[in-house]
Amino acid sequence: MERKVDVLVIGAGPAGIIGAVTARKNYPEKKIVVIKSVANGVIPCGIPYMFASLKDPDENKLGNAALEKNNIDVVVDEATEIDREKKTVTTKTGQKFVYEKLILATGSVPIIPPVDGINKEGVYPVHKDMDYLKKIIENIKGAKNILVLGGGFIGVELADEISKIDGLNVSIVEMLPTLLPNSFDREFSAFAQQALESRGVTVLTGTRVEAISGEDKVEKVQLSNGKDIDVDSILIGIGGTPSTKMASDAGLKLGVGKGILVDEFMRTADPDIFAIGDCAVKRDFYTHKETQVMLASTATAEARIAGANLYSLKVVRENKGTIAIYSTYIDGKVLGSAGLTENAAEKEGFEIVIGDAEGVDKHPGTLPGASKIKIKLIFSKNSGIILGGQVSGGISCGEIINLIGIAIQKRMSCVELETLQMATHPFLTSAPTVYPVVLAAQNASAKR
Amino acid sequence: MERKVDVLVIGAGPAGIIGAVTARKNYPEKKIVVIKSVANGVIPCGIPYMFASLKDPDENKLGNAALEKNNIDVVVDEATEIDREKKTVTTKTGQKFVYEKLILATGSVPIIPPVDGINKEGVYPVHKDMDYLKKIIENIKGAKNILVLGGGFIGVELADEISKIDGLNVSIVEMLPTLLPNSFDREFSAFAQQALESRGVTVLTGTRVEAISGEDKVEKVQLSNGKDIDVDSILIGIGGTPSTKMASDAGLKLGVGKGILVDEFMRTADPDIFAIGDCAVKRDFYTHKETQVMLASTATAEARIAGANLYSLKVVRENKGTIAIYSTYIDGKVLGSAGLTENAAEKEGFEIVIGDAEGVDKHPGTLPGASKIKIKLIFSKNSGIILGGQVSGGISCGEIINLIGIAIQKRMSCVELETLQMATHPFLTSAPTVYPVVLAAQNASAKR
Repeated sequence: MERKVDVLVIGAGPAGIIGAVTARKNYPEKKIVVIKSVANGVIPCGIPYMFASLKDPDENKLGNAALEKNNIDVVVDEATEIDREKKTVTTKTGQKFVYEKLILATGSVPIIPPVDGINKEGVYPVHKDMDYLKKIIENIKGAKNILVLGGGFIGVELADEISKIDGLNVSIVEMLPTLLPNSFDREFSAFAQQALESRGVTVLTGTRVEAISGEDKVEKVQLSNGKDIDVDSILIGIGGTPSTKMASDAGLKLGVGKGILVDEFMRTADPDIFAIGDCAVKRDFYTHKETQVMLASTATAEARIAGANLYSLKVVRENKGTIAIYSTYIDGKVLGSAGLTENAAEKEGFEIVIGDAEGVDKHPGTLPGASKIKIKLIFSKNSGIILGGQVSGGISCGEIINLIGIAIQKRMSCVELETLQMATHPFLTSAPTVYPVVLAAQNASAKR
Repeated sequence: MERKVDVLVIGAGPAGIIGAVTARKNYPEKKIVVIKSVANGVIPCGIPYMFASLKDPDENKLGNAALEKNNIDVVVDEATEIDREKKTVTTKTGQKFVYEKLILATGSVPIIPPVDGINKEGVYPVHKDMDYLKKIIENIKGAKNILVLGGGFIGVELADEISKIDGLNVSIVEMLPTLLPNSFDREFSAFAQQALESRGVTVLTGTRVEAISGEDKVEKVQLSNGKDIDVDSILIGIGGTPSTKMASDAGLKLGVGKGILVDEFMRTADPDIFAIGDCAVKRDFYTHKETQVMLASTATAEARIAGANLYSLKVVRENKGTIAIYSTYIDGKVLGSAGLTENAAEKEGFEIVIGDAEGVDKHPGTLPGASKIKIKLIFSKNSGIILGGQVSGGISCGEIINLIGIAIQKRMSCVELETLQMATHPFLTSAPTVYPVVLAAQNASAKR
């Protein structure tokens, strides 16, 4: 049984959904089908909050509503093979789809570190699957000593969130010397660590898990610092590997970290096959080197490019490379990062100048609910162009990092940021005289 | 007694302070003096919050700390005359200052409408003077029926704030058909009106005050709708007139609204005299027409330009024109505006296309504290360049409007905004699949 479609999308995470919806907007007359392997998906960035903050994990459901509303068919099945000559995709249950244009949005699978005992009961990788996650959540709530493996965003957010469940001891282990090491310099990582510790989480950086022991179920974990700790549940949050076996089997080239290689318009080497989201290789905004960033917002930006360029190239809808823009929320405090850290910029060989500023997110700072805010901007010393920014503080930092993100995407200079026009209001922002983004730019300018 | 200084600044509002401080940063060796006519100043945007939200009005003090820290002398006196030939400024008490460079930051005075009875006791213009404001606040607290005259930002914020004082009936009168008419289109003005009404404020738009009556003190107000209402206090918040008599007497040319004409570097026709803040004419970012915008954040941006260009021009520190970027906070809800409204763009003759989007500022939207968010973006139809934006919602809108402000200042296109990379987080922003700035840009694109 062959089914003929115009646009076939494999995967229904944020990339797949937005890829399909954008295709629909650009090509109203085409027949579009999405194949998804997980019947009940979840919003990826909401996964940590299914453990405590959301009353019901189902609130974090990623359903088919957007697809159905846009007249896109959904098939629950697992795509297993692409035949590029015949332009067909075959599934596990034997269905066969003939496509004109194929969008691969196959996502990633959690990395399972090669540690002794990692397959014991009670060790849970974080799969983006509602039914699976509901079971884990139930198990965690009955546990006592939880270990979170990995101090990146997912690990830190899981640790913060699980610490809200009564009666649990939570520890987090990160191999590198600081938390969130790819996105923050040392001083901001320290802020994250303090926030977790103030919630009672034990933070173990520069530490590895050497072995996991227990009869069937995990009971103890042996750490690289020589200590053994009692653990009855482990959550693994150390990142993902692109799901690209099918693409590779079909002869599509893979790049760094086994992501599918794509051009500026998200096309693979086969002009009828696009790849977006976690399964596609990213390029760095500044160096254009291949890089790996797994982020729903990057995935949706790519999906909007692919969906618009399927049948003919719209030359301004191109991928300028990832700026790796993140925000997180720990113990009610906010951290944001975009572009290169000081550490990353120096490693890459940039000659840089740093601008720092501190302030308060209301004015006067005595207004109720005011939070301290701290901003660090990294500029190219020679050109004065912004390379990256980090911010910590209260809720408003969630959009301040996006403002810095636009400055990066438009390659603004520190001089432009010094004379930025911004709206300020006592209840909403710092005072215009001391708006921290402006002060940080001034601080950098003075050093050039 | 003549006192020789290098840089003389007249005025110590946000413009004067930042002008002097920026001069200090750029010219560490110069002797800088600031003359201020009001001994105890206030942070202008904080004035409404002195009535109720701040425990003590003194929390909103604008003092001399920033000046003193930067080794800038402060003189409390009123400058009355500029002699451009001799390069001197004389004060009310007869002091005389010889300057190399003069920065006029003389601000504005409240407009008093020519209404019968406007000079009666109980009618209060809003002067930026701590001692004066403290007296008004005491009087208002003892009043019963308050009328706020003017439905711009200051009027709306005063009405919202005074409604927090127990036992007061608050009304607001605006001549034009909607509140905040210069910064918002009808649908956003309606949102502001609902917010005020939900606080119990009576909103009278399209209405004028015809006469104020009472023995010595105001007792009744006659409105253009034919009604007489009982009023025992009136707060006037209908804007200001630039304080430019001294500049005009010295032969400096005035422009629209009697603001001092300046060039891109904030220089008047006299290359040794700069004018910044409320006393200087602004130019519109898009048309470069003269316009009047009285805003502390605009003033500080101008001050940073003037302070850097005093002795030699730094050609990239120039004034691109005002984007009129505002935010306000009414009944806990936030409104922001930047650039041209739909109404203003059409009046100016732009061919435009509108993009609308609605969303929630957390995801899933069931998270505690989530607010609805509404965004409208205005683009040039032909070029796709952003002309303006308006937003309403919760606290995060305070920085979302600044993000839109950067997009305006960098003349971003709707296509660029469609593929924007942004950080998203369940507790901080909309989901990446439905980030409202991106959706509004897409909505506009689909109509081009």
